[in-house]
Amino acid sequence: MNEPSTLAPVGVVGLGLMGSSIVAALLVAGHPVRAIAPIAPEAGEAPERIAGQLRQCHDAGLIVSTEPYLDALSISQDYGMLAGCVLVIECVIEKPEIKSAVYAKITAAVEAECIIGSNTSAIPISELQKFVDNPARFLGIHWAEPAFMTRFLEITCGEQTDPLFADSVFEMANRWGKEPTLLKKDIRGFITNRLMYAVYREIFHQIESGQATREDVDKAFRYDAGSWMTLMGIFRRMDYVGLKDFETMLTRIFPQLSSSAEVPAVMQQMVREGARGVHNDRGLFSYEPGEGRQWDEAFARFNHEIHRLAAEYSAEKVKAYLQ
Amino acid sequence: MNEPSTLAPVGVVGLGLMGSSIVAALLVAGHPVRAIAPIAPEAGEAPERIAGQLRQCHDAGLIVSTEPYLDALSISQDYGMLAGCVLVIECVIEKPEIKSAVYAKITAAVEAECIIGSNTSAIPISELQKFVDNPARFLGIHWAEPAFMTRFLEITCGEQTDPLFADSVFEMANRWGKEPTLLKKDIRGFITNRLMYAVYREIFHQIESGQATREDVDKAFRYDAGSWMTLMGIFRRMDYVGLKDFETMLTRIFPQLSSSAEVPAVMQQMVREGARGVHNDRGLFSYEPGEGRQWDEAFARFNHEIHRLAAEYSAEKVKAYLQ
Repeated sequence: MNEPSTLAPVGVVGLGLMGSSIVAALLVAGHPVRAIAPIAPEAGEAPERIAGQLRQCHDAGLIVSTEPYLDALSISQDYGMLAGCVLVIECVIEKPEIKSAVYAKITAAVEAECIIGSNTSAIPISELQKFVDNPARFLGIHWAEPAFMTRFLEITCGEQTDPLFADSVFEMANRWGKEPTLLKKDIRGFITNRLMYAVYREIFHQIESGQATREDVDKAFRYDAGSWMTLMGIFRRMDYVGLKDFETMLTRIFPQLSSSAEVPAVMQQMVREGARGVHNDRGLFSYEPGEGRQWDEAFARFNHEIHRLAAEYSAEKVKAYLQ
Repeated sequence: MNEPSTLAPVGVVGLGLMGSSIVAALLVAGHPVRAIAPIAPEAGEAPERIAGQLRQCHDAGLIVSTEPYLDALSISQDYGMLAGCVLVIECVIEKPEIKSAVYAKITAAVEAECIIGSNTSAIPISELQKFVDNPARFLGIHWAEPAFMTRFLEITCGEQTDPLFADSVFEMANRWGKEPTLLKKDIRGFITNRLMYAVYREIFHQIESGQATREDVDKAFRYDAGSWMTLMGIFRRMDYVGLKDFETMLTRIFPQLSSSAEVPAVMQQMVREGARGVHNDRGLFSYEPGEGRQWDEAFARFNHEIHRLAAEYSAEKVKAYLQ
């Protein structure tokens, strides 16, 4: 992507799965990374995991060799190391009291203009912001797994965020090879999440009323929606279908859609039964023991391929064929 | 796929874009195809278009040569040619009175047990069924464009459809290399369409309330949802994310989602202005003159690649790595 260590230093706090993945993404983008591992076991596992992720980047042709990027990484439990960072990204667990303590340590170490971002997908930025000294510099920086392979990145402002800081992260994200989105209002649930909730509400309604099976929905999404999603997104798909009949269709179908506020019975049951999906091989689909891990590996490989396809078929390239 | 002309003859009525594409799919699957072109200009254009589609199948490695498949195609304006077909698929325009007249001609030509399917995506099967002699054999067979490349196929029963006929089409579709879904109830709007309407309702709401821009949504879907859709579908994605926090999230977010029955203002305006998306280079996104056609070509190529990826990462193959 970029030469190693050519950009300003960036900090990452929290080296779980997501944190490590973000570290790898930032290294590949050309930042020296100062990583804080507040949890001792994570500090032990992280170097090997990040080295493996850099090898994946190498295999995908993103970098020519892993060593100089790995050399740009320092891992410590000492927050003092964050001094001089232009940006610090927090990826610790989704508990406000823990995040609050982490922000106190970050702000004690960094300069007043250092941007602080949270990878949270559960807690409103406006709430977390209250824990941060000089809250105007605090915002959400929400990555998709694996961070070093996916192009998605969602930047969310809280009520007190100065938009200039958000614009600055937006520009950085472009340099990281992302396709960042910038949410200027702090709505709970981020764009994709929110839209997926609209899908969940409707799909569980269809299944509970016997109109479709789980397998039907799976096929419809994988082979129909999936066939154009990465190329067209939502609105270009509407343009592609032709906008002519949409008004009639929306008028007819909107009133028929589920507007339920109830958690679907099947989800309630799954939770009661302790199902954790591929993480314990018990979920909405059935899994053989160990199959969950296969999905992890398949996703890493698949993501690499879909990432390549998405870049190859960008709107700019489709348009460029015109010339 | 299969050797040419090894299966029973199938009829197709209507040789517009979709009809031609379905003809190509059936030829490649190994059926002799008897195609009725009720509209003279379509009869003229169709042979060349279908030959081009077969060349695409050849380039994609689906067939070894185009000629024997093309030889299995007869095109005529004479419905009498449909005698002996095991299945006839209607793909004429979405006007009940025209479809009704077409069904009268089809049923006059075919045997009583010949299955008749409609590719409609706008008119309920239960309504169309009323026009058909021996309505138990009538059902919806809904393809995705381009039919010869996509794996999606949605079979829909009307109120009077005998499920045995639906099962029979389901089995045929598997032989065609599809991943068919079978909707036993005739709900208006098909699975993907219905879910997409749930997405549209929410997304226009977000945009109208200034929470996101069209470009943000585009990126979120292309780079986030698009990155896992073809691999995981909806429910396996939930399993992958882990089901743990879903109950809390759904409880919180469902009541916040749009439940509007109103057509979004921007859609009303587009329709008033005669925007037809990529078909006249005026839509929700802006297009240069001729750019719409580029999207058509890009989609044909993209679809070919995503089709390959979907097959390579089927649930069976992911599981097979376990052994």
